[in-house]
Amino acid sequence: MNFTVLTLFPEMIRQTASESIIGRAMDKGILSLNTIDIRKYARNRYGAVDDYPFGGGAGMVMQAEPIFQAYQEAVEGKDASKIPVILMSPAGRRFNQQIARDLACYDEVIFLCGHYEGIDRRVVDEIVTDEISIGDYVLTGGELPALVIMDAVSRMVPGVLGNDESAQEESFSGMWLEYPQYTRPRVFHDKETPEVLLSGNHEAIRKWRLREAIRLTMERRPDLIDEERMTKEEKKIYQELLSK
Amino acid sequence: MNFTVLTLFPEMIRQTASESIIGRAMDKGILSLNTIDIRKYARNRYGAVDDYPFGGGAGMVMQAEPIFQAYQEAVEGKDASKIPVILMSPAGRRFNQQIARDLACYDEVIFLCGHYEGIDRRVVDEIVTDEISIGDYVLTGGELPALVIMDAVSRMVPGVLGNDESAQEESFSGMWLEYPQYTRPRVFHDKETPEVLLSGNHEAIRKWRLREAIRLTMERRPDLIDEERMTKEEKKIYQELLSK
Repeated sequence: MNFTVLTLFPEMIRQTASESIIGRAMDKGILSLNTIDIRKYARNRYGAVDDYPFGGGAGMVMQAEPIFQAYQEAVEGKDASKIPVILMSPAGRRFNQQIARDLACYDEVIFLCGHYEGIDRRVVDEIVTDEISIGDYVLTGGELPALVIMDAVSRMVPGVLGNDESAQEESFSGMWLEYPQYTRPRVFHDKETPEVLLSGNHEAIRKWRLREAIRLTMERRPDLIDEERMTKEEKKIYQELLSK
Repeated sequence: MNFTVLTLFPEMIRQTASESIIGRAMDKGILSLNTIDIRKYARNRYGAVDDYPFGGGAGMVMQAEPIFQAYQEAVEGKDASKIPVILMSPAGRRFNQQIARDLACYDEVIFLCGHYEGIDRRVVDEIVTDEISIGDYVLTGGELPALVIMDAVSRMVPGVLGNDESAQEESFSGMWLEYPQYTRPRVFHDKETPEVLLSGNHEAIRKWRLREAIRLTMERRPDLIDEERMTKEEKKIYQELLSK
């Protein structure tokens, strides 16, 4: 799988990616990363790629032409119709694990990172196939969001994670938050490890973890809970905890 | 304001931050960034900071002691009770713009970045004051989420953004997505700039932008809309668009 990032900060993307799971997957030859500096297609020798917004207002707007040319470089010799082009945008649909899984099925994904107060709408209409937001907060640019999405997507690409790591992913029915973890030493600052985890009784451990996961989810993220998707065992614990 | 990040990847935090708005604010002397390598407090000379989970299961768990010692270094000589310690965690409360504003009021914030399959719960109970998630997706570690939060918080610290930039932030009542932007040239690939933006009629431009922002929000993020918070003008446009 190949990621191409159209950005004003190619160095930041490359450096951060190389120190992350993306770098590990690149070393394994499973992923590749291509950055295209939008400034390469600036309209003058001062590297200008933005201009004042028509109609006035604060800030600058990224111009259509440099972005379009960077995009053309990205798809040159490829079947562009098969490559999603994602604009990182607070107005996009909210990123989640299902979108990560979906994107992991493509051979190539292009990310367009905005800066300043926005991007000329016409180039967005022309090349972008999907607008995605990583959450309801305002960031300076699209680079961190693109890195977040690449991290989440990389994990879903077969071979990127070891077997051990991927197994963990689908714990329980995928609806519960993670149960609490403990490791050595058995006692830390007078705090004991829960007895059951040291018991060697695998079934008791499994049940305790499931119960803790359900309890935590009920406490913190009741919005994630869907009775329809519970196993019989989960439903029983859930109703027991509810009645307390 | 000072950010301290407890992490296994201090280089990644420092490099990425320096190329972002945080770096700009550091140059201005408004922000500072301190990274503490948890591995510095490894239990042996091989740098081990993790161990198998009690009770079995895939993956490794970060041990309590190295994290606790890194934390102690972070708060040495400071009033620890005044410093929020944030664990980046999918089980945390969901990050949003209000949390960014709240965090920007502190003199110091500490971020704890997890890796592997989690962190020993006992050190979390002991030092962490807040668990935050940037969204419902699985990432490899807490570094990108910490960078995302630092970016969003930095923007809220007085003096970090220029006046021009901060003005944009509070467009409309803060409930609407951004209206579409256009800049030169007037025609791009046969696509015209909307006439009104070239009219010089400020009131007409303001109205058009407000209408487009409301339309976009209704289309994409109806969940953000709250009639109680609308101005009279917004309500009128909203109801007009609703009836179409």
